[in-house]
Amino acid sequence: MKTRKRFTLARRPAGTPVAADFRLVQEAFPELEEGQFLIENRYASLDPAIRGWLDDAPSYMPPVPLGEAVRATTVGVVAQSRNPDFPVGQWVLGLNAIETHSLGVAGGFTGPIDPMIVPSPTNFLSVLGAVGMTAYFGLLEVGQPRPGETLLVSGAAGAVGSLVGQIGKLKGLRAIGIAGGAEKCRRLTERYGFDAAIDYRGKTVDQLEAEIRALAPDGVDVVFENVGGACLDAALMNLRHGSRVALCGLISEYNSPEKIGARNLWQLIVHSARIEGLLVRDYLPRFAEGGAQMAEWVMAGKLVIDEHVDEGIEKAFPAFMRLFEGSNDGKMILKL
Amino acid sequence: MKTRKRFTLARRPAGTPVAADFRLVQEAFPELEEGQFLIENRYASLDPAIRGWLDDAPSYMPPVPLGEAVRATTVGVVAQSRNPDFPVGQWVLGLNAIETHSLGVAGGFTGPIDPMIVPSPTNFLSVLGAVGMTAYFGLLEVGQPRPGETLLVSGAAGAVGSLVGQIGKLKGLRAIGIAGGAEKCRRLTERYGFDAAIDYRGKTVDQLEAEIRALAPDGVDVVFENVGGACLDAALMNLRHGSRVALCGLISEYNSPEKIGARNLWQLIVHSARIEGLLVRDYLPRFAEGGAQMAEWVMAGKLVIDEHVDEGIEKAFPAFMRLFEGSNDGKMILKL
Repeated sequence: MKTRKRFTLARRPAGTPVAADFRLVQEAFPELEEGQFLIENRYASLDPAIRGWLDDAPSYMPPVPLGEAVRATTVGVVAQSRNPDFPVGQWVLGLNAIETHSLGVAGGFTGPIDPMIVPSPTNFLSVLGAVGMTAYFGLLEVGQPRPGETLLVSGAAGAVGSLVGQIGKLKGLRAIGIAGGAEKCRRLTERYGFDAAIDYRGKTVDQLEAEIRALAPDGVDVVFENVGGACLDAALMNLRHGSRVALCGLISEYNSPEKIGARNLWQLIVHSARIEGLLVRDYLPRFAEGGAQMAEWVMAGKLVIDEHVDEGIEKAFPAFMRLFEGSNDGKMILKL
Repeated sequence: MKTRKRFTLARRPAGTPVAADFRLVQEAFPELEEGQFLIENRYASLDPAIRGWLDDAPSYMPPVPLGEAVRATTVGVVAQSRNPDFPVGQWVLGLNAIETHSLGVAGGFTGPIDPMIVPSPTNFLSVLGAVGMTAYFGLLEVGQPRPGETLLVSGAAGAVGSLVGQIGKLKGLRAIGIAGGAEKCRRLTERYGFDAAIDYRGKTVDQLEAEIRALAPDGVDVVFENVGGACLDAALMNLRHGSRVALCGLISEYNSPEKIGARNLWQLIVHSARIEGLLVRDYLPRFAEGGAQMAEWVMAGKLVIDEHVDEGIEKAFPAFMRLFEGSNDGKMILKL
């Protein structure tokens, strides 16, 4: 009898997750019912958003149930099938879990993909996946940038941030990135084409505020916020009139028992500015449009795509934690 | 030689203003130059925004200089004139100061008004002034409400909040108000037509969050925020998908040395919601439109206008502090 390995949630993390919050289990394949199919997962996407799904808190998706495999987007191949739309051998992309095999159901969040259209099937988890669509629609729809404006990106060396900066440059913006450490900052300007980089490590809000001001004395028009905390408070002190903060993530507080939020909200009033939350799911009906544009840029050599692939489901926990340590270089992917 | 009395800023308040931060001075009228005119102020508008202008912080207006009269909108009558556009006896409205007489200049922020079109010239400081325009454009333009939606207003018994609730009802919204104390809450439902009221006094964020949820189990679509702090954090936990928070004021933190902001910003991501700052000055070109609509509602008996008038420039300090104590019943106005 065939078995699968699953990276399951053993208990809800209190603050920063620890290894004992998870359990790697091995169990029998589920028996397929009519309409179902079994996906052999090849790659799982490790994203900061997963941290939110581990908490028992009101969110846009139900919490991962205790004892269940941790939810993640995966790319895989159909290994068994009782569904004619998903024949054995078909590559698929779907919202599944960190597990070697997932059960596909009719009408679920899994769709066929053609891995031949991109250099690597992992690209469906980066530039053509939620990460790419978040950067594309988040910057262009929520940020509403106009050519010549100044863009500030936090978490700029990350999977989403590095794409946001590059798309910003393609759209005629001046791009300033915030990242942790000299090496990442060098990557921002040399590899992703940011005009300037700020290293946030060891700096107070006041120091960050002053460094942003030095680079953008007239203020910033669009902030793409991935981090929150000191980065967001410093950004809020440098807004121009009518500026837009696209709130994509708050990774600095995802492991904090107390939410951090922002103190300098009063600056929104001073500058008639806004903070708008960004949920990529809202743009699902336009993913084809976004994907086509991103693919065109990739094929034209206009977008640098960095992926950080760790291998083996046994590595799921340390690979996931790289997102919070900042020790990944590019989109974090687990090869299963 | 004629003199005027001025309520001046003696030093910048540290936190909550105290009487010694101000000084009432008596000085000679300025000599009029060509194009200038002297306004005998009858009424001054006391607004929470004034508190922000007392700090030496980056804002949408320069700080009130030390030794200068405290900036305020006033209604008055031209008493001397070397400007043919402002003859003696003309009623005017302008951004002047808390002083018995202000110097009007050509091209300044003062314009003629006709006090005959409203029941009282004070109405130019309430329903037809910045307060009325803030409620009108803030709710309708920043809040973007649709009939049938649920509106939550904090500071709902205040000058702006009471108008926001009434405009909301005129536009077919369900209106929930938050105010301090049983009497104000009664006023919300009985006098201003709110559907329900919540008394915030002595309650934690969790309690406020639960009370809002009990009244709006499906969440709120528009939040009109005047208060900040616990009110805002509780409101953020009750947002619907795509909801709008019109950030008008943060009176709970204006006297705080540390800015308070909001902790539950993560809910903006969960619900693709936004917080947008509201500066009524942006709508100056549309004040005539807003004023006409407000005047029509007033004349039709559809808007209740409450004004709280204290008398005498000697009362300027305690009258201003009512805004923070919540001891005013309606738009706070000082009769000079």
